[in-house]
Amino acid sequence: MPKINGERLLGDLRRIAEFGRYQTGVHRPHLSPQDVESRRWLAGRMKEAGLEPVIDGIGNVIGRSPKGGPRVLMGSHTDTQPRGGWLDGVMGVIYGLEVARALGEDPATAHLAVDVASWADEEGHWGGMLGSKSFIGRLTEADIDNARHRDEGTPMRAALKAAGLAEEPRVELEEGRYRCYLEAHIEQGGLLEASGKRIGVVTAIVGIFQYRLTFSGIQNHAGTTPMPIRKDAGAAMMRLYNDVMEEFPKLAAERSVWTVGKLSVEPGAPAIIPGKAEMILQFRDADLAVLKRFEQGLLEIVAAHRARGPCAIECVNLSRTPPAPMEERLLEALDEAAEAHAPGHHMRMPSGAGHDAQILAQRLPAAMLFVPSIGGISHHFTENTADGDIVLGCQVFADAAAKILKSN
Amino acid sequence: MPKINGERLLGDLRRIAEFGRYQTGVHRPHLSPQDVESRRWLAGRMKEAGLEPVIDGIGNVIGRSPKGGPRVLMGSHTDTQPRGGWLDGVMGVIYGLEVARALGEDPATAHLAVDVASWADEEGHWGGMLGSKSFIGRLTEADIDNARHRDEGTPMRAALKAAGLAEEPRVELEEGRYRCYLEAHIEQGGLLEASGKRIGVVTAIVGIFQYRLTFSGIQNHAGTTPMPIRKDAGAAMMRLYNDVMEEFPKLAAERSVWTVGKLSVEPGAPAIIPGKAEMILQFRDADLAVLKRFEQGLLEIVAAHRARGPCAIECVNLSRTPPAPMEERLLEALDEAAEAHAPGHHMRMPSGAGHDAQILAQRLPAAMLFVPSIGGISHHFTENTADGDIVLGCQVFADAAAKILKSN
Repeated sequence: MPKINGERLLGDLRRIAEFGRYQTGVHRPHLSPQDVESRRWLAGRMKEAGLEPVIDGIGNVIGRSPKGGPRVLMGSHTDTQPRGGWLDGVMGVIYGLEVARALGEDPATAHLAVDVASWADEEGHWGGMLGSKSFIGRLTEADIDNARHRDEGTPMRAALKAAGLAEEPRVELEEGRYRCYLEAHIEQGGLLEASGKRIGVVTAIVGIFQYRLTFSGIQNHAGTTPMPIRKDAGAAMMRLYNDVMEEFPKLAAERSVWTVGKLSVEPGAPAIIPGKAEMILQFRDADLAVLKRFEQGLLEIVAAHRARGPCAIECVNLSRTPPAPMEERLLEALDEAAEAHAPGHHMRMPSGAGHDAQILAQRLPAAMLFVPSIGGISHHFTENTADGDIVLGCQVFADAAAKILKSN
Repeated sequence: MPKINGERLLGDLRRIAEFGRYQTGVHRPHLSPQDVESRRWLAGRMKEAGLEPVIDGIGNVIGRSPKGGPRVLMGSHTDTQPRGGWLDGVMGVIYGLEVARALGEDPATAHLAVDVASWADEEGHWGGMLGSKSFIGRLTEADIDNARHRDEGTPMRAALKAAGLAEEPRVELEEGRYRCYLEAHIEQGGLLEASGKRIGVVTAIVGIFQYRLTFSGIQNHAGTTPMPIRKDAGAAMMRLYNDVMEEFPKLAAERSVWTVGKLSVEPGAPAIIPGKAEMILQFRDADLAVLKRFEQGLLEIVAAHRARGPCAIECVNLSRTPPAPMEERLLEALDEAAEAHAPGHHMRMPSGAGHDAQILAQRLPAAMLFVPSIGGISHHFTENTADGDIVLGCQVFADAAAKILKSN
């Protein structure tokens, strides 16, 4: 079995963290100057590892193996959240690179082929998982024409041009090239840590349904408008949110989650009754039936509040991402490798966060491996994982890849 | 009795609305170039009316009568809300000007003295009612040193300098000079219209208690953080607001109002559990006992939510403005004048909005008169009042002033 080089792995992770360093983390949104620089560095490291790298027309970095025979595709993303962590995404990419190197160094596995990818824009500065969507053929030229930076409003075309990628073709999945897609990632939650485990084998990536609820009332003076005639959009939003919080636990499965992370009232002055209010509600579960139950429950709450008045309520579905189940035989290979290197210290679990693997799973058998996040923290510059867990995860990943490539 | 000139009154109102015209309304925040220009125009009109005008060191325009004997002070404000209406404030100032002119034109009242004021910053771009507070001696030099524009952050000192007022002294109330303070204003609500009345005689200006509630939880990933361990500051805010909406009706008097006009969550992203949330709650009533009851109720709700957890809650009182009762004998003079000109079409009512009269009432007997707001609209450029009601209100105001000045 291949033997990964822990020092080389950690060294590459520390080196790429310098592109956009922010305190103990990294600020490297897709197509920022630091991101583009990091992609060129990554392509260089792929080349040194014997892969043939390209940076394609959306920003994907894909290092292809010149070897023949069955291949495994490994990847994740090197872009980050604003002021995010040093491992979220990039760890899985460097795992792929290290596995390719380790396989090549062992005469028993030197013939096995691994392609490695860093998918563009996983963190959604331009749309969300645009790189993996492009790769599986689910992103049109018009999608790119319309894509704007979510905060700055810059056209993506302009950013691609500035990155020198405007003329590059986009690389698409070649039918039959891969046995499967494997992705490693930090957990981004506290379940492994709380369970005393070091490896998570992901059974499914949860689905996410997302809604925008807009409440329209009448903006008016907070001193001169009597309570009985008010149409307070903010109060209407609060009442509905409260009912969601009362009802959703009755509809939930064990690991269901639901969140209002964004809300606002207009005009937002202490002495003015809000004429408009808006909130984004999302819910996640690994079971589509549970998501549909939540959706039905939400629509019933909205109907009841509409009937009650006094504000108009608009309820718009923004997305319905179905759960993505992982491939059982791949999970078994990961279980087995984990048991060999960390006996009794691995567990199966769903992923509550979204990952490129859910996109790739639409075209390839896919699986994911998690390593523990210290304190469950992610999307923050203090995000971290013990060095020993980073190295262990990569070794498990290498073993599983070798096993999958050697199987008939 | 004096006879006001309706055309001259409406002409002055239309003329001053040109300073900062915005659609059918006016944008004239205190010390904006348009505001400063309008103050110089107003001082000119006061001089033409035989008053002796000054623009003082905070921006108050005060036109003093050179006549002896008992005097009445009349005023309101000429600054406006952002993109506000053409009458809010300025109507009361031009009423004062027109009453001074009308009294002077009638030999029976030509000896009666009226001083007219436009108070600075009633709308609170720099603090709120700073002009009337200055006039009654409740504004220190340090208050002005510290005042900043609420949106732009500019120091008030710089704006006063730009307006050419930095070296002007501030005019303070001269003890014994006035019998009373009278202010006219648009209603800013729909009670007169709904009641079919044309004149409101204000019994009291409501008190306002205002609180900032800050909820502190733990910011985390909306996909990977299980519901039982969440500390969602947004959800905590919603729960408390909901309890306020359930409990406050039980504590309310007939015309009590309570409002959350401003609220926010941080960081405010759909997939991040809010780590912080904040809302401003205010309540108003003409009875201090009712305000204290609400305050007690709020503190009990906060205590219950603190005990329940899981978020920390900070509850800070931002202001406690007590109700300002108006002077009964002045109300009687207004009732009588209203009955003479609009028999059966006047009513007594509290003011739900704050006015400079509540500041002046701390040093002088005070009273207010309202005219109807069409559709109850104010703080918006579509605010309006029927011309006939504007003229009627001024005539009632003139009669009442004459009666008060002639009484022993």
